[in-house]
Amino acid sequence: MTKYTVAALQVGSWPGTTQDILNKIFSYEEEIKESGAKLVVIPEATLGGYPKGSNFGVYLGYRLQSGKEEYARYFSQAIEVGSGDQYPEISQLSLLSKKTGASLSVGCIERDGSTLYCTMVFIDPVRGYVGKHRKLMPTAAERCIWGQGDGSTLTVVDSAVGKLGGAICWENMMPLLRYAMYAKGVQVWCAPTVDARPIWRNIMQNIAYEGRLFVVSAVQFMPNATKMKYGDVVDESSGTRKLPGWPSADENCINGGSVIVNPYGEIIAGPLLGKEGLLTAEIDTDLIVEARFDLDPVGHYARGDVFELTVNENPHGVKFTK
Amino acid sequence: MTKYTVAALQVGSWPGTTQDILNKIFSYEEEIKESGAKLVVIPEATLGGYPKGSNFGVYLGYRLQSGKEEYARYFSQAIEVGSGDQYPEISQLSLLSKKTGASLSVGCIERDGSTLYCTMVFIDPVRGYVGKHRKLMPTAAERCIWGQGDGSTLTVVDSAVGKLGGAICWENMMPLLRYAMYAKGVQVWCAPTVDARPIWRNIMQNIAYEGRLFVVSAVQFMPNATKMKYGDVVDESSGTRKLPGWPSADENCINGGSVIVNPYGEIIAGPLLGKEGLLTAEIDTDLIVEARFDLDPVGHYARGDVFELTVNENPHGVKFTK
Amino acid sequence: MTKYTVAALQVGSWPGTTQDILNKIFSYEEEIKESGAKLVVIPEATLGGYPKGSNFGVYLGYRLQSGKEEYARYFSQAIEVGSGDQYPEISQLSLLSKKTGASLSVGCIERDGSTLYCTMVFIDPVRGYVGKHRKLMPTAAERCIWGQGDGSTLTVVDSAVGKLGGAICWENMMPLLRYAMYAKGVQVWCAPTVDARPIWRNIMQNIAYEGRLFVVSAVQFMPNATKMKYGDVVDESSGTRKLPGWPSADENCINGGSVIVNPYGEIIAGPLLGKEGLLTAEIDTDLIVEARFDLDPVGHYARGDVFELTVNENPHGVKFTK
Amino acid sequence: MTKYTVAALQVGSWPGTTQDILNKIFSYEEEIKESGAKLVVIPEATLGGYPKGSNFGVYLGYRLQSGKEEYARYFSQAIEVGSGDQYPEISQLSLLSKKTGASLSVGCIERDGSTLYCTMVFIDPVRGYVGKHRKLMPTAAERCIWGQGDGSTLTVVDSAVGKLGGAICWENMMPLLRYAMYAKGVQVWCAPTVDARPIWRNIMQNIAYEGRLFVVSAVQFMPNATKMKYGDVVDESSGTRKLPGWPSADENCINGGSVIVNPYGEIIAGPLLGKEGLLTAEIDTDLIVEARFDLDPVGHYARGDVFELTVNENPHGVKFTK
Amino acid sequence: MTKYTVAALQVGSWPGTTQDILNKIFSYEEEIKESGAKLVVIPEATLGGYPKGSNFGVYLGYRLQSGKEEYARYFSQAIEVGSGDQYPEISQLSLLSKKTGASLSVGCIERDGSTLYCTMVFIDPVRGYVGKHRKLMPTAAERCIWGQGDGSTLTVVDSAVGKLGGAICWENMMPLLRYAMYAKGVQVWCAPTVDARPIWRNIMQNIAYEGRLFVVSAVQFMPNATKMKYGDVVDESSGTRKLPGWPSADENCINGGSVIVNPYGEIIAGPLLGKEGLLTAEIDTDLIVEARFDLDPVGHYARGDVFELTVNENPHGVKFTK
Amino acid sequence: MTKYTVAALQVGSWPGTTQDILNKIFSYEEEIKESGAKLVVIPEATLGGYPKGSNFGVYLGYRLQSGKEEYARYFSQAIEVGSGDQYPEISQLSLLSKKTGASLSVGCIERDGSTLYCTMVFIDPVRGYVGKHRKLMPTAAERCIWGQGDGSTLTVVDSAVGKLGGAICWENMMPLLRYAMYAKGVQVWCAPTVDARPIWRNIMQNIAYEGRLFVVSAVQFMPNATKMKYGDVVDESSGTRKLPGWPSADENCINGGSVIVNPYGEIIAGPLLGKEGLLTAEIDTDLIVEARFDLDPVGHYARGDVFELTVNENPHGVKFTK
Repeated sequence: MTKYTVAALQVGSWPGTTQDILNKIFSYEEEIKESGAKLVVIPEATLGGYPKGSNFGVYLGYRLQSGKEEYARYFSQAIEVGSGDQYPEISQLSLLSKKTGASLSVGCIERDGSTLYCTMVFIDPVRGYVGKHRKLMPTAAERCIWGQGDGSTLTVVDSAVGKLGGAICWENMMPLLRYAMYAKGVQVWCAPTVDARPIWRNIMQNIAYEGRLFVVSAVQFMPNATKMKYGDVVDESSGTRKLPGWPSADENCINGGSVIVNPYGEIIAGPLLGKEGLLTAEIDTDLIVEARFDLDPVGHYARGDVFELTVNENPHGVKFTK
Repeated sequence: MTKYTVAALQVGSWPGTTQDILNKIFSYEEEIKESGAKLVVIPEATLGGYPKGSNFGVYLGYRLQSGKEEYARYFSQAIEVGSGDQYPEISQLSLLSKKTGASLSVGCIERDGSTLYCTMVFIDPVRGYVGKHRKLMPTAAERCIWGQGDGSTLTVVDSAVGKLGGAICWENMMPLLRYAMYAKGVQVWCAPTVDARPIWRNIMQNIAYEGRLFVVSAVQFMPNATKMKYGDVVDESSGTRKLPGWPSADENCINGGSVIVNPYGEIIAGPLLGKEGLLTAEIDTDLIVEARFDLDPVGHYARGDVFELTVNENPHGVKFTK
Repeated sequence: MTKYTVAALQVGSWPGTTQDILNKIFSYEEEIKESGAKLVVIPEATLGGYPKGSNFGVYLGYRLQSGKEEYARYFSQAIEVGSGDQYPEISQLSLLSKKTGASLSVGCIERDGSTLYCTMVFIDPVRGYVGKHRKLMPTAAERCIWGQGDGSTLTVVDSAVGKLGGAICWENMMPLLRYAMYAKGVQVWCAPTVDARPIWRNIMQNIAYEGRLFVVSAVQFMPNATKMKYGDVVDESSGTRKLPGWPSADENCINGGSVIVNPYGEIIAGPLLGKEGLLTAEIDTDLIVEARFDLDPVGHYARGDVFELTVNENPHGVKFTK
Repeated sequence: MTKYTVAALQVGSWPGTTQDILNKIFSYEEEIKESGAKLVVIPEATLGGYPKGSNFGVYLGYRLQSGKEEYARYFSQAIEVGSGDQYPEISQLSLLSKKTGASLSVGCIERDGSTLYCTMVFIDPVRGYVGKHRKLMPTAAERCIWGQGDGSTLTVVDSAVGKLGGAICWENMMPLLRYAMYAKGVQVWCAPTVDARPIWRNIMQNIAYEGRLFVVSAVQFMPNATKMKYGDVVDESSGTRKLPGWPSADENCINGGSVIVNPYGEIIAGPLLGKEGLLTAEIDTDLIVEARFDLDPVGHYARGDVFELTVNENPHGVKFTK
Repeated sequence: MTKYTVAALQVGSWPGTTQDILNKIFSYEEEIKESGAKLVVIPEATLGGYPKGSNFGVYLGYRLQSGKEEYARYFSQAIEVGSGDQYPEISQLSLLSKKTGASLSVGCIERDGSTLYCTMVFIDPVRGYVGKHRKLMPTAAERCIWGQGDGSTLTVVDSAVGKLGGAICWENMMPLLRYAMYAKGVQVWCAPTVDARPIWRNIMQNIAYEGRLFVVSAVQFMPNATKMKYGDVVDESSGTRKLPGWPSADENCINGGSVIVNPYGEIIAGPLLGKEGLLTAEIDTDLIVEARFDLDPVGHYARGDVFELTVNENPHGVKFTK
Repeated sequence: MTKYTVAALQVGSWPGTTQDILNKIFSYEEEIKESGAKLVVIPEATLGGYPKGSNFGVYLGYRLQSGKEEYARYFSQAIEVGSGDQYPEISQLSLLSKKTGASLSVGCIERDGSTLYCTMVFIDPVRGYVGKHRKLMPTAAERCIWGQGDGSTLTVVDSAVGKLGGAICWENMMPLLRYAMYAKGVQVWCAPTVDARPIWRNIMQNIAYEGRLFVVSAVQFMPNATKMKYGDVVDESSGTRKLPGWPSADENCINGGSVIVNPYGEIIAGPLLGKEGLLTAEIDTDLIVEARFDLDPVGHYARGDVFELTVNENPHGVKFTK
């Protein structure tokens, strides 16, 4: 049997603390169980938060003190990632995975030393934490708050629904990253994001079609009027954000748009727009074989004699040898 | 000034001989001039023809004699590519380019020795023939009639509208090929094809958006009832094709779908469906700079420390040294 | 002593599953033992099957859905190749090799990721799986179902009867491939094929004579009326194939023609035509030395000053470095 | 004789175009000649400009269209870097170098493809353009407008006053970068910056003392009231900037602070504060030898057995091989 | 029109002088004209002679004086090759070509300095002498009387029937030589020889089939009882040869066996055995295209990415540079 | 709560024996308790002594006997370092730590075999001895009396105030050592020294600022007229030192200068000059996060792709393997 249910859990990263958001995720336990989903993808930065519209007081040549303090508060909401009791958020998620029987791909803000990373964590119902992928290339203002992942977290993990891997938000537009992932045999591509624009779905369809695999993209949903505990970016009285370029009060801060796409580039669930929720679809991984009959991106359709890609998976930085 | 008109000439490759098709192209001289187009992209295999629906009598383990003869006739309609009087089709196209002031990207079937290639030829109003790109990876049945290009024709040429390059039909789905082309600085991506399906436009949008460049995709248009001089694939009495899987008589053989897309992935002209014609749009190449502000695929958004692509541009084969 | 018995096992790849065909091969265990054969060559695509006469619904410009499904079924019959329990077919063949004391060269369809390859596997009585060679260049319709091997499987292995190497079906007509193999010291050339025509024997004689080595060519035998489990290509009621160009019901689908040839180009066993069976011959490898007295293709008869062949044995594709 | 005059030219990057700023630099020709300076260091981003206080409309999750347009205008003021007539700004600077006899280290915004880099260009009185160094790590908001240099521009060049090298602005705080430069034998460290704070001088003293070399740090000077041609960041009526966190009208935008430091960490010229000007000092490179008697950072004071630094000087990115 | 008649002129190189043999060739003028042949291939060593059965007094460690004298006589019958009156044999052959309208490929012994070469000369009806090919690798005893050609005479010439090239006698068994010739586009392969064995025809079929071209192989015919003017190798009284291993008197010295083969490896004329004569066949060069549909040895069936052949066409020897 | 008091205990290493100096340290028990300090850093070589001004009779090519005897006396004052009763000095310090609740970082001269090392010992209120760091690179004359530490003591230990690590005296100027320590996550940098010059404070500020951490630097204080029990370097009658280059009697031998610096490079306590004493400051380790927002030296501001530091933490010396 090669048919499975997969899901995207469209939630936002505010209001409240990281634990509040965890609790919100846990509130979906029954719905996940009932859906029979064997994979649930949770959006980018869901744990730790995506402070959309902030610029952390960063201007060319100086940073405002208020921005630094905002960063310190943001830092405090990030989580550490690993296996064991010293990683309470991961432990809680592992319990959810165990109870529901679903593998999880969870977008979070990871704290390592003094740098934050935008990370996707993979959790297995039996093994718990099985790996992570750090976003390689933050976009625009993100570069001021998140570090860059290196080649050591191009993680692909086994799951009931096949090999899981993927990319976070705009690094989905890095052709060489995608190619490396295809070469590792990803069958279900996890694409957590906060990009709610229609063209995002176009990008997802293209990955599914170019890579001949399934794509599950989970997008955050956050209403405009969310009273965020975080930062100074919401007008407390009106409940709307008051940032330059911010949409009017009747538009959502992040409007969702989660989708599930098959290897022919067809959207088979979603887009889920304008509300929170669990988006599910049944997939048949046999379709991957059939779809690669006439285009196997890293097999018979590659031209390794012309294009040779070398992927450096060494972690960057200091090496201590003993 | 960075605003130019570019065009896709949506024509078919039948009925008639290669010279008949050339004449059809030349019949657009006035319309091209009036449009002010500085670039005209002509579909894949327009010269030489795309015998859609044929399989050239190829079955696993044997080839029908009728298929070999069909191939010999197909071979005779192919052209040789180069600069000078011994290349009459290129010379005629060069004259069209000179008269209209438009650079041309022309899809043709190229004959080299005893092998055919699916080639895109670049022609300049002043310099005439300036280069070609051979399709690297034919798809499915094409592999039985066309050879594979090598890395020596990853051609990018200068033109009035910026650097031209691109890919033919499904090789547009080869991430490493695209990346190599981006790295060569392509500004206007020429994508001749015979793929008339809606998802083709999705792919085009994605290249434009991922590569932050303009895309001009020219698709063939051929009515179903075309009385082809070629092969045995049309029922002469009914004028419809009688092949397995062929659509009903009221559908076109290749329905067109040419589009022009801007660096934000927006379709700014087309799709032109169900008829022949010249599709034009004004583009502003300054938009490329603006669009790469937050994603320059081979610049600030690349991760050369993790992903190193080596492109072998040597021509394959025998080297004679004197 | 330099005299050994070598053999070609002329069997077909249908009816039944891959395991059924394996069982058929195993049914020859006693006969192999009695023959004293130290090498048994098994035809091209024997495991996985050669769906002669099919075109997998491939036509220029489209593929039929029925062809894709046929491909998925075909894919399911292919095997993975390697050493260890996770490769059950190879393990079973290794047991046969151990029991009979004969090295095996087995034609199979190999599955790697989502691409299929036409592969010759080498198995040693003591060491089990010792290497493989993937067909470099599929012919005609095969290009739509099999990938191309690269230079990394130009495998030559030691055996009791001398160095084994070879080529599959029409790649035997690639002069540079043959030369590379000669240069690696092949003494017994294994040539699995499905080509049953008389000229095939001519080609085999030529390789033996040009290369001054022994050739063992094993050809499939399949009756026309075989009720294939595979595909839709047989008329169930009549049991005959109903494909374009198919021979009449009283001709076989693949008629065999296995031969064993000595370094003087003389056929010393076979051709075995019109039936299944084990073809054997005694060879004396000292004859190779004698025959190369006046023509050593890569030795005194080569002209390295004029012709320099560079063979790229790097595997194509992505390289992950850690 | 080992005594030479070196200088920092403290100028700003506005008002006016890149050519206006070039003209301002050229207006110092006589003063440079009279000073006898053999080296003139010009601040970071002097050509192309440092749009202090802008954030280019970058907020987490979106970019304002006005910011993109601002970037396009900024892009247009950047220069291309290389040797020859196609690099007019470099050619003009080469002429200044030739006329004055002074080597130049010039901070500029370099355009390469569609990405901008913050670059220090080295120009020699005789050889003209001799190399460049791209800033490896932009700071905060700079990451949204400048790419990251790679290891291929850790340039050290010969000059009359000794080996020149250095780092731009905050990359001066990268210990491994400094160490790599020390290992290349830099004798006069060029440190262009826009950092006008007192601690900057502390950092400069430390590099001089830790590295036992001379430091010439050139800081931009820009009055607050400058009527910038660039962007929308100045209130046209009042001439003051109206950005968040901007100092009051009586403070300068960038207050200068250029210094020259000797290998004992002593400031021997400057800081030049609150005005434009040419800061000069006589240096004696023999002092470097003397100062390294008891601390040679990459010589007798290094512990290569414990700390091994590997510097990857390969350019990142695509490699085309022919 | 692509149909032409080609011919092999099966003659011997004795009795008589070189001029006698030339006269014998000229005696076929009318027959050639009547046949309409546009190409006539004349066997290896026809001019100058093939002294079959001699060993020129060569023994390991010494040479007989009689052998040296025999060589001097042999040397005197060789010809010089070039264009103009100083090459009388070539001039005479050019006249024959002009009169008959047939291109000639003539096997001869070429004298260059003090060395003899086994050469094939190409003569054109209009242009006269157009090139030559020297045998690269003499076989066995030939190595004592003929030098080795180098890469500078891998000649391919245009003719009415297509591109002519080829190889002499056993160098036809050099895979790399053949490949180089295929790559030069040979359409009609000229194979002069003195090898009259059946396997020779097998080799010719294989070249035609592997190279997908026409082969014209001309073999000498010499009766056993020929009274040779040359050497001491014939018993003057009995007219039979008295050499070790010589066949009985009722067998011919060289029995002929000329053949013409089409690109499918089918013998379409010959073998002509046991007598002198002109062997002709009509060929259709369009068949080359058809036959290469499924195997173009240097086009779509090559694997230049794996096998790269470098051919050194420089003439060997002393280079004088000014 | 992240606010703690830290301290530098500015004492000298003479007059008296090592036990005398220990007793002096213990005399500060109450003051430490009252201050609430959770960390006390004690200067370089406080236990064992810093015989400033001596050269131990070392001249190029010979050593005076008197110097050797001086060294023997110096050797006798050094301590052995480890955990347990056999290390009485460490045991006494552990008791102080337990009583005061303060972690200690104590500069001492360590005896190991026959070599002395300049070592910083870390002592924890609960765990007692937790590690040590040996100076890697002694300066100038120190190289005649102290050995060099190896990579096995790049110790970082946990404490109430965060991770402790650091460097001794001038090894603070080793960029690679610092980088390795930063990479290990040091939050409070302990810098024991005998360098009392103003530039020392500059160096300390730079480490704090470059590393974005707190620095506690403890400097010895020794009056000029100290009657040292040690050596012949003090004039017993006058109480002044009579060494070459010694300052006048009214200057101190080592003038102190202990400082505490925050991650912005600001001195928040000290310099304490001209007297003994306990220097304290309150630190807030949250400031480290805030300060690393725009510069995390081993996180987002590192360039591991360009600079890779390998740290060999193996102890040097003989390895016995079984």
